[in-house]
Amino acid sequence: MKIKGILEGGKIVVFDKKGMHSLHGKGFGELKKEKLILCLVEGAFLVWKKRLEVSHEGKKLDFLGLYNLACSADNKFSSKYKVFVDLKERGYRVKCEESCFRICLKNTGKECPVFVYEEREDFLMRDILSFIENSEGEIALALVDEDMEVTYYIISRIHPEGTEKREFEKIKGRTIDNFVYVEDKRIFEEGFFGMPFASGVILAPIEALYLGEKGFLEISRNGKVVSKKEMLEMFENLSTERYRVYRDLRDKGLVVRTGFKFGSQFRVYKGNPHLRHSDYLMDVIEKDFKSAWSEVSGKIRLAHSVKKTYVFAVVEPEKIEYISFSRFLP
Amino acid sequence: MKIKGILEGGKIVVFDKKGMHSLHGKGFGELKKEKLILCLVEGAFLVWKKRLEVSHEGKKLDFLGLYNLACSADNKFSSKYKVFVDLKERGYRVKCEESCFRICLKNTGKECPVFVYEEREDFLMRDILSFIENSEGEIALALVDEDMEVTYYIISRIHPEGTEKREFEKIKGRTIDNFVYVEDKRIFEEGFFGMPFASGVILAPIEALYLGEKGFLEISRNGKVVSKKEMLEMFENLSTERYRVYRDLRDKGLVVRTGFKFGSQFRVYKGNPHLRHSDYLMDVIEKDFKSAWSEVSGKIRLAHSVKKTYVFAVVEPEKIEYISFSRFLP
Repeated sequence: MKIKGILEGGKIVVFDKKGMHSLHGKGFGELKKEKLILCLVEGAFLVWKKRLEVSHEGKKLDFLGLYNLACSADNKFSSKYKVFVDLKERGYRVKCEESCFRICLKNTGKECPVFVYEEREDFLMRDILSFIENSEGEIALALVDEDMEVTYYIISRIHPEGTEKREFEKIKGRTIDNFVYVEDKRIFEEGFFGMPFASGVILAPIEALYLGEKGFLEISRNGKVVSKKEMLEMFENLSTERYRVYRDLRDKGLVVRTGFKFGSQFRVYKGNPHLRHSDYLMDVIEKDFKSAWSEVSGKIRLAHSVKKTYVFAVVEPEKIEYISFSRFLP
Repeated sequence: MKIKGILEGGKIVVFDKKGMHSLHGKGFGELKKEKLILCLVEGAFLVWKKRLEVSHEGKKLDFLGLYNLACSADNKFSSKYKVFVDLKERGYRVKCEESCFRICLKNTGKECPVFVYEEREDFLMRDILSFIENSEGEIALALVDEDMEVTYYIISRIHPEGTEKREFEKIKGRTIDNFVYVEDKRIFEEGFFGMPFASGVILAPIEALYLGEKGFLEISRNGKVVSKKEMLEMFENLSTERYRVYRDLRDKGLVVRTGFKFGSQFRVYKGNPHLRHSDYLMDVIEKDFKSAWSEVSGKIRLAHSVKKTYVFAVVEPEKIEYISFSRFLP
């Protein structure tokens, strides 16, 4: 026999004692003063499973009736319902909260909030950061696309560290075109800066700036040594944020190259890039970064398919935060 | 003994008969009135290989001297030189032209122009289209990134055709949220539209619009049949260009789904999507489309790594052109 519930105030209320305990024992709803309160996705799911019968203003609602009502009450209901059902079918207990679902991850056993997004919504870094701020560990996102398929991402704050912290005696270089040419090949062979060129190494502007700032490189132009101020002017097309992240990563022993062929700003190695593939694909953004979700989903997918992790380096005045995005099959 | 050349008017001129024929026999330069005219990349390459000695205004230029002069004459010289050397090292004969190099592709033996781009340059669809217009078959692009690494793309016009041209007797559907719900599952099982939902199938707006326009679907809302005009209003958030491409592909027997998880607008199947992976990742653009090159390179790379082809559908008033972009290892 079906358990009976009443739709009121956007929730489904179950008064029947036996029914409420059987449902609550299976992870549905919240017990409150001798009643079980189900959210609309739980209600619709249980109606579909023929375990619940819901009435509203004295009339019985069938599944599609309840679904339609729920859609008009919440314009993301379809997507939330899709994600809820998908997680249930994968064997999760799913707790409904106001802004998200909550599940226990199978690999770690840790509780993790799942936020539902739709394809057409914007990606807002500020929202993601506040979700992370308010949760203790990882968070998950469930993206529902136009065809009602769900893609899951796990997001966490990471602290990249590498093994390639090196110091160099000051070497001399000279400008060639927009690059800096040095004869000493060790900067490439041991420091993983630049590319072999002619009989030496050619350094990209961002590399020359970093090595110059560290005191490892003296650059001359037309025979005259370039001061740090002139150096900054020479490379003025380097965005400050991008350089700050480059410097932070290099200071932490990571090797940083352009991520151009992967459509990102950097590819980043935790160790010797001549012996390993890169670990991260990274884009430098500010806290206010906003983008179409599909741009971000493409980047996460590419990183996944080349066995790297996609990371946003979020530059703030006083710090840089590294936020990793991975595909996740729950 | 090195062959002697003189730098004048942005070219290197070789007067020595024996020298000019030996170089020309190896594919370098252009013979003109008892002289061999080398472009600057050829000249720099031959100087580096110690086969040529170049003087300018009576003074001998070493490799870096010539390279620097060439850079100030042409702000893309570094990149062109890099690509030229890379192609030579891969065993190609490379013909220099004003706007591109020209090589014979190893697989087809066909001549193909190679246009050089730099990471920082914009991707302009209009340029690509005019390159294709002026060449008989495929064109290649060589993209030089900040670290002076080269990535090659092959671009061609394609004419997608699929096997899934179906007709349906008119079925009835009703709106649910932003979707259309139909009971008849054949639309999914045989037509590859929509997703199973409740006891039927739920259609995305773009699918409902197409099926409605074809006369295969009658939609009702709150019990009243929706006219074609109302249907267009209902789905007004569908961009016209996107729908035009959707319709064109479906009319040609291809199955079209959202490409969201790959960061593109569509993923497209030449046949039954329940039996095969999709063939194309596609974005709909107009002729004036402009983008950072790195966005495009990321998309081509992703398509490659999931064994699909990346395609721009370029919508013009009278036609749609499909331009495919593939990674290419020369």
